[in-house]
Amino acid sequence: MRSADIIAKKRDGLSNSKEEIEFLIQGCAKQTIPDYQVSAWLMAVYLRGMSMEETAILTQAMIHSGSVINFDAPSSHLLVDKHSTGGIGDKISLSLAPIAAAMGLHVPMISGRALGITGGTLDKLESMPGYSVHLSEEEFKKTVMRDGYAMCAQTENLVPADRILYSLRDVTATVESIPLITASILSKKIAEGARALVLDVKCGSGAFMKTFQQAQALGESLSKTASLMGIKTSVLITDMNEPLGMKVGNFLEIEETVDLLTGPAPEDVRTLVLTQAAYMAKMAGLVPDIDSGKDLAREQISNGKALELWWKNVKNQGADPAKVDAMLRKERAPYSAVIHSKISGYLQICAQVIGQAGVLLGVGRNQKTDAVSPTAGFIFACKSGTHVLQGRALCTVYAPTKQQLEQALQFIKDHQGFTTHNEPIKKSPLILQEISD
Amino acid sequence: MRSADIIAKKRDGLSNSKEEIEFLIQGCAKQTIPDYQVSAWLMAVYLRGMSMEETAILTQAMIHSGSVINFDAPSSHLLVDKHSTGGIGDKISLSLAPIAAAMGLHVPMISGRALGITGGTLDKLESMPGYSVHLSEEEFKKTVMRDGYAMCAQTENLVPADRILYSLRDVTATVESIPLITASILSKKIAEGARALVLDVKCGSGAFMKTFQQAQALGESLSKTASLMGIKTSVLITDMNEPLGMKVGNFLEIEETVDLLTGPAPEDVRTLVLTQAAYMAKMAGLVPDIDSGKDLAREQISNGKALELWWKNVKNQGADPAKVDAMLRKERAPYSAVIHSKISGYLQICAQVIGQAGVLLGVGRNQKTDAVSPTAGFIFACKSGTHVLQGRALCTVYAPTKQQLEQALQFIKDHQGFTTHNEPIKKSPLILQEISD
Repeated sequence: MRSADIIAKKRDGLSNSKEEIEFLIQGCAKQTIPDYQVSAWLMAVYLRGMSMEETAILTQAMIHSGSVINFDAPSSHLLVDKHSTGGIGDKISLSLAPIAAAMGLHVPMISGRALGITGGTLDKLESMPGYSVHLSEEEFKKTVMRDGYAMCAQTENLVPADRILYSLRDVTATVESIPLITASILSKKIAEGARALVLDVKCGSGAFMKTFQQAQALGESLSKTASLMGIKTSVLITDMNEPLGMKVGNFLEIEETVDLLTGPAPEDVRTLVLTQAAYMAKMAGLVPDIDSGKDLAREQISNGKALELWWKNVKNQGADPAKVDAMLRKERAPYSAVIHSKISGYLQICAQVIGQAGVLLGVGRNQKTDAVSPTAGFIFACKSGTHVLQGRALCTVYAPTKQQLEQALQFIKDHQGFTTHNEPIKKSPLILQEISD
Repeated sequence: MRSADIIAKKRDGLSNSKEEIEFLIQGCAKQTIPDYQVSAWLMAVYLRGMSMEETAILTQAMIHSGSVINFDAPSSHLLVDKHSTGGIGDKISLSLAPIAAAMGLHVPMISGRALGITGGTLDKLESMPGYSVHLSEEEFKKTVMRDGYAMCAQTENLVPADRILYSLRDVTATVESIPLITASILSKKIAEGARALVLDVKCGSGAFMKTFQQAQALGESLSKTASLMGIKTSVLITDMNEPLGMKVGNFLEIEETVDLLTGPAPEDVRTLVLTQAAYMAKMAGLVPDIDSGKDLAREQISNGKALELWWKNVKNQGADPAKVDAMLRKERAPYSAVIHSKISGYLQICAQVIGQAGVLLGVGRNQKTDAVSPTAGFIFACKSGTHVLQGRALCTVYAPTKQQLEQALQFIKDHQGFTTHNEPIKKSPLILQEISD
């Protein structure tokens, strides 16, 4: 088999066979096929697309490029996880995992880091001093089965082809390809042992998918490809035109998570957590429908079980619960400023601008190797759509240095992060579509 | 400027700017842009195309990747060359150069080697013992100005970006792209100093362009791109469904060249040589029209001037004219066999099959590093369209080893290199289209 022939078929809009895709991905992982051939193929895939069958084969080939976590559990139907395509203030995973665990599920959650405007679950967890996201496979498996969940970074052995492909896609303008995104997401989640998945596809200015059509196409690709691989999915297409919740920032989102597990929480965060937990419960067969799933999830908050598992996980992974608890509502980056409304009217907050300002503050990062600030971020006083009077405080911005604070404030001003309108603004619904097996 | 942004523009079907193309080609030549980015861009160009303006910019950027031969001649309009996209038995350059020189033109002919089924002018010249195609730039320039022509291999300094791009295209399924082929051909011919070009675009089973539409598209791209760069062109689209002339092979084609310069020659070879010479004379302003150009070319044969310049060149470049002359019609590969017609009928010879059988004999090569046989090849007894009786000799095949002879004969049989038909076959005209400035 010649790599150039495999590339030529995709270039001409034909399907690549199982043998061809496996040959290419194995060669890519073992570095026996040079990068320049892989990148020509990636561009051909970007422009010609892939069928769901090809995408499933690609996903499987990527999984087989490394080791797979095998739980050997008699109750494998309880191994359920979630994935979000990422947004601003999306801290759902942090509370969802303990709630799902409290319901009796096993959540083998392997997460990523902040990149660009998108926040990262691992960076949020590491804002708790001592918290380690590096678990051995044995430790990870043991903890998931014993306490219902563990939070872990991707190991070197898990889907190595994805790391190689992603770093090539990043520099060859082939990131935004639906089959390639699908295979990247599913391969990692299936390799970590999950047998059913809730997929939160974000849509809007602060998301990777800017339009509903794009988000829907990705949602359908994820759902159909997973189905071909025998994996159940529930896809939620959700709004990301304004930041999620009232707090954006690594430790600030830990606070909002503890708040939700304790009781008080912004409506959008609570809705997404309960909905995602309900789909997880339904796919695992714990409840007959989504409404009973939401009730079951709510119960895990009111009976304190989810919060107990949260602190247990904090302790399991090396942080001191008492110390973290004492930091809540106190730990803030040293420089802050309040943004006020210049005129009266209906407020609109732009997720993309907040995300980009967040990168300037150190909430996120531009390069994989950049450090993040645990305590920088934003606390919003109100959400998009609120009628605000002139001079009202809209948001407090926290920065590790004076310079970063000024840069972020200037950026928000220049790019109209907060605007006020005479007429009520049209907000898109929080959940735009639910696609379920 | 970021390479990924340049790739993304082409990926999205937009035009790349002059600055972007220059940045990419310079980076490619200096190896500061990694191959995997160049190959992703090449695939995007393959699938999205390029405008004539972009192609002209690419050609210019490729020329500037190395040094350019500057003749500093007061008569630069006399610097005329030709290029053929290649075929089976295409020995036109060998006699065209001395005829053009005899007419008073300066032909700075830099040629290539056989690859795949396509023969190479350099390999044909080197079948004359002692003939060297490696001239210094000074020697090349001096000889072209003094004797009217010289035959030379591409030096390391001439269009280095083309070598890098071509070797990447070869392994990434991006060879058959009209803008990339156009820039590759024109950059080399312009860098060698030619100011007007006859371009012979071959079309048919033995050519790179299989259909008339493909050949026409390449012809128009060559003509319009060259025009944007201030270079005159005449494009001939010519048939390559059967081999050109009666002899195919490296030294065999030297024989047919000397025959033509002496007098007797197959009609197709003579027509192409006279037509190409006529276009060269007309573009240089030596004649008012193609018919007078053909007359002028014919005269160079009948008055012996072209043959005199041929032997002068043979001597200039290191071979012994007397020795070469003595080899004519005697020097043959040791193993031979005659192919006979199995039934009576109208003969059809397939150029592609002969080309592929030629690779087995060592006329051509599969890999750049393979050696060729100087004396292997084919002598045809008749052309396609001839009515032949059962048992008539059609072709003698010469091979350096018994095994190669058997392989070639078997290949020709299996792939129907020679077929006989009850009805007269429809032959395509030799010259399908002439596109002239």
